[in-house]
Amino acid sequence: MIYAANPYICSFRTIMAQKPSIPKGTRDFSPAQVARRNYIIDTIKQSFTRYGFQPIETPSMENSSTLMGKYGEEGDRLIFKILNSGDFMKNIKDFSEIVFGKDFETEYTESEVSGMPVTTGKISDIDSNKLSTFISEKALRYDLTVPFARYVVQHQNEIELPFKRYQIQPVWRADRPQKGRYREFYQCDADVVGSDSLWQEAEFIQLYDQVFTDLGLKGTTIKVNNRKILAGIAEVMNAQEKLIDFTVALDKLDKIGEEKVKEEMLEKGISEEAIEKLAPIFRLRGSFQEQIDQLKELLVTSEAGQQGIKELSFIQQIIDANPLQTAKLELDVTLARGLNYYTGAIFEVSAPAGVKMGSIGGGGRYDDLAGIFGRDDISGVGISFGLDRIYLVMEELQLFPETVTANTKVLFINFGEAEAGYAFTAVQQLRNKKINAELYPDAAKMKKQMTYADRRDIPFVVLAGTNEISDKTYTLKNMKTGEQQTLVLKDLVEKLSF
Amino acid sequence: MIYAANPYICSFRTIMAQKPSIPKGTRDFSPAQVARRNYIIDTIKQSFTRYGFQPIETPSMENSSTLMGKYGEEGDRLIFKILNSGDFMKNIKDFSEIVFGKDFETEYTESEVSGMPVTTGKISDIDSNKLSTFISEKALRYDLTVPFARYVVQHQNEIELPFKRYQIQPVWRADRPQKGRYREFYQCDADVVGSDSLWQEAEFIQLYDQVFTDLGLKGTTIKVNNRKILAGIAEVMNAQEKLIDFTVALDKLDKIGEEKVKEEMLEKGISEEAIEKLAPIFRLRGSFQEQIDQLKELLVTSEAGQQGIKELSFIQQIIDANPLQTAKLELDVTLARGLNYYTGAIFEVSAPAGVKMGSIGGGGRYDDLAGIFGRDDISGVGISFGLDRIYLVMEELQLFPETVTANTKVLFINFGEAEAGYAFTAVQQLRNKKINAELYPDAAKMKKQMTYADRRDIPFVVLAGTNEISDKTYTLKNMKTGEQQTLVLKDLVEKLSF
Repeated sequence: MIYAANPYICSFRTIMAQKPSIPKGTRDFSPAQVARRNYIIDTIKQSFTRYGFQPIETPSMENSSTLMGKYGEEGDRLIFKILNSGDFMKNIKDFSEIVFGKDFETEYTESEVSGMPVTTGKISDIDSNKLSTFISEKALRYDLTVPFARYVVQHQNEIELPFKRYQIQPVWRADRPQKGRYREFYQCDADVVGSDSLWQEAEFIQLYDQVFTDLGLKGTTIKVNNRKILAGIAEVMNAQEKLIDFTVALDKLDKIGEEKVKEEMLEKGISEEAIEKLAPIFRLRGSFQEQIDQLKELLVTSEAGQQGIKELSFIQQIIDANPLQTAKLELDVTLARGLNYYTGAIFEVSAPAGVKMGSIGGGGRYDDLAGIFGRDDISGVGISFGLDRIYLVMEELQLFPETVTANTKVLFINFGEAEAGYAFTAVQQLRNKKINAELYPDAAKMKKQMTYADRRDIPFVVLAGTNEISDKTYTLKNMKTGEQQTLVLKDLVEKLSF
Repeated sequence: MIYAANPYICSFRTIMAQKPSIPKGTRDFSPAQVARRNYIIDTIKQSFTRYGFQPIETPSMENSSTLMGKYGEEGDRLIFKILNSGDFMKNIKDFSEIVFGKDFETEYTESEVSGMPVTTGKISDIDSNKLSTFISEKALRYDLTVPFARYVVQHQNEIELPFKRYQIQPVWRADRPQKGRYREFYQCDADVVGSDSLWQEAEFIQLYDQVFTDLGLKGTTIKVNNRKILAGIAEVMNAQEKLIDFTVALDKLDKIGEEKVKEEMLEKGISEEAIEKLAPIFRLRGSFQEQIDQLKELLVTSEAGQQGIKELSFIQQIIDANPLQTAKLELDVTLARGLNYYTGAIFEVSAPAGVKMGSIGGGGRYDDLAGIFGRDDISGVGISFGLDRIYLVMEELQLFPETVTANTKVLFINFGEAEAGYAFTAVQQLRNKKINAELYPDAAKMKKQMTYADRRDIPFVVLAGTNEISDKTYTLKNMKTGEQQTLVLKDLVEKLSF
């Protein structure tokens, strides 16, 4: 449908002339793709809701001040900024800041015109970064966490704590596009704020298992760790002040192996003696419980370490009492993921063995969110599902059920006005029974209509000509088997209702 | 969940310090609002699918060249433009165009530096419009029609014609926000391209009726007109060259009355004699058929008019044979809606009488889209649902079913570790039965937990302490009636499954 009153005609011709394309890193989704994506999203939503999470939605654009500075320098660069509307240059009061920002002071002169300083200078010297703060006040959402924090603070009087929210919306990042990395993609997040209970961690593990089970994605591994374990290890190594360097290196154990990890630690100034103490960590093996037992000994002198072990044990105990359906819980002391903000549990989900894919989900606890709520007892914990990666894994493993389609089930062939009228009554009856039905709009050649049904993968076709009309019947053709049946309307509806 | 590795902690504190807000014209949606919006969207989607429409999705951002110039000058101004990433000023090759665009040539000097002309001048003279074409290559979707046209052309080899697509996605407009008008809002469109069959028009009327019936929104009026009727009237009045002025004035008949409409026509240079001929149009009364009969006589000399009557009659005949469930079909010869692009049928849906609200849906046929497909026999027709207005109407008429909520059905009170463990087994069983269940995460005071259930509008609470554990029972409390029952797990699940 068209809204604005305007000469569309020439505009469409223009589009045609332009060889249309979309910005790099963005995607069009075909009907089949939308159906499959919605299948994943609906499955996730269903579990979110069953676990007591409630949906919120926030605007695509936030005030720049809400987003800028929240994701580090790199993040700021990757935020899509929206140009102010109208004559945005005219509204800039203080030009000097834009150009003088770059130490070009000597090159510029300021003269007083109508009480306002006028800056003149080489336009090519204008600092893009500085200019953007003058000509852009809004930016596109970069993730769902900062908008969530903003929402919680802004609506704190309407919210009951603990607040369990989920949010499934697109985010935008001006990242260099590559396979599996897009400039517009969906995040599917569930978070709880307002409780530091470890029951939440256990519930999130159950939730992951439920969603992947519902999707038929068997054999996922939910890896857990705890920042306190990492802190404990660093303490025992006497390398507390190198905690980040140490964990960044340890996190790579899977990919680069023990020797390279040690090399990196040495480079970062961690002593050989300390690394020696780390040896048992490299060799942690066995079940969750066996690893816990080994850690207990290793970290006997670290209070933080013992606390981390206690937390992991609590979670393990709940999962033992309520076993997972298809996922496997695994302790992975090398797991770090943005250690900077996780303060307790850390989660990461791997695709089933054999599928080459990074993590398909992750999360953790971030206790230090508390401060913003003006109370000290508020903590946050959350998980995220990687929609695009889950899609790719399911496609690779051919896990999408055939029924996942928004397709039409039956096409009625159009033989002319009277026949179409006769067909339409049946079409409407089928639709009332929630069956997706179409009447071919034109009395085109039979072959053309059949080809349409075929190319659209419509499984059934109904033919109703003069004979059927006089017999009050419909001829149903199965497009796969070629089988034909002549049925009265009631039987036709029943046949297509299975 | 948090993705980027960064110091979130201080950033959240910053948000708190900022008194957070969102850009004007945008909205946060609470859980209750999201549930209600999704109820409307899901109802619309369901009918779209049953009528054979398939979903597509297009990126939020399009290349500026795809959008600019498609919605007229006013539209171009209302398109949100996205600032290029990186050092966008450095990448501008030709500065002279930006400043010289405004006839400031004499004020500027160009000097040759390293083979490139360098423009110097007053920064305040930079033309915002010209500059934006240099620093912005992408823009936010303004409607769903231009992206759809772009999609059809770009994917023409993958698409079967007639192509029936629906699309439900947000669009953005830098309009002045006011009651019911937002800068970010959803459009819900269904269009068919590739057939000029009038069956489509009839189907769209049925589709409107189905959706509003499903929503419980009885008493809507689907008004139809046809551009050929309007052209016929203008022809009979001998005012063909004033067709637009004439219809713009006629469109206001409802609002300003006959006298004011005549005045406006006179002002626009339509002769008194012509307006006199229009008199019977102002007095068209009676049923669809009666109005058609009167029009037949009035437009007897106009070929276009007769064609329009024929088309409307065809549609009327189909609707007569397949009566609408709750909507009323009405012929409204004053209906024009963007006449510039509609070439055949024109639709508009009014809310039930008594509700003050503009149209809650609209659409029409736009035959002249054909050209872009490189064939002459391709035509488009579509309709749109006004989500925000439908929401307001349903809220005013209290039509949202109580069951439309993403809320939790039962909260288990947490009395401590052992009790919580006992409760959790039941929670998981309920969730497996698709019942939304929560365990309060902390062993907080009973009163606090009950208050939480109350404020969250959770209808049931389960209490399971030492007694229940030893009896293997659960005590279920109805929060509305206060009624309590002690049940074994099987009965609890059954009781909550209704």
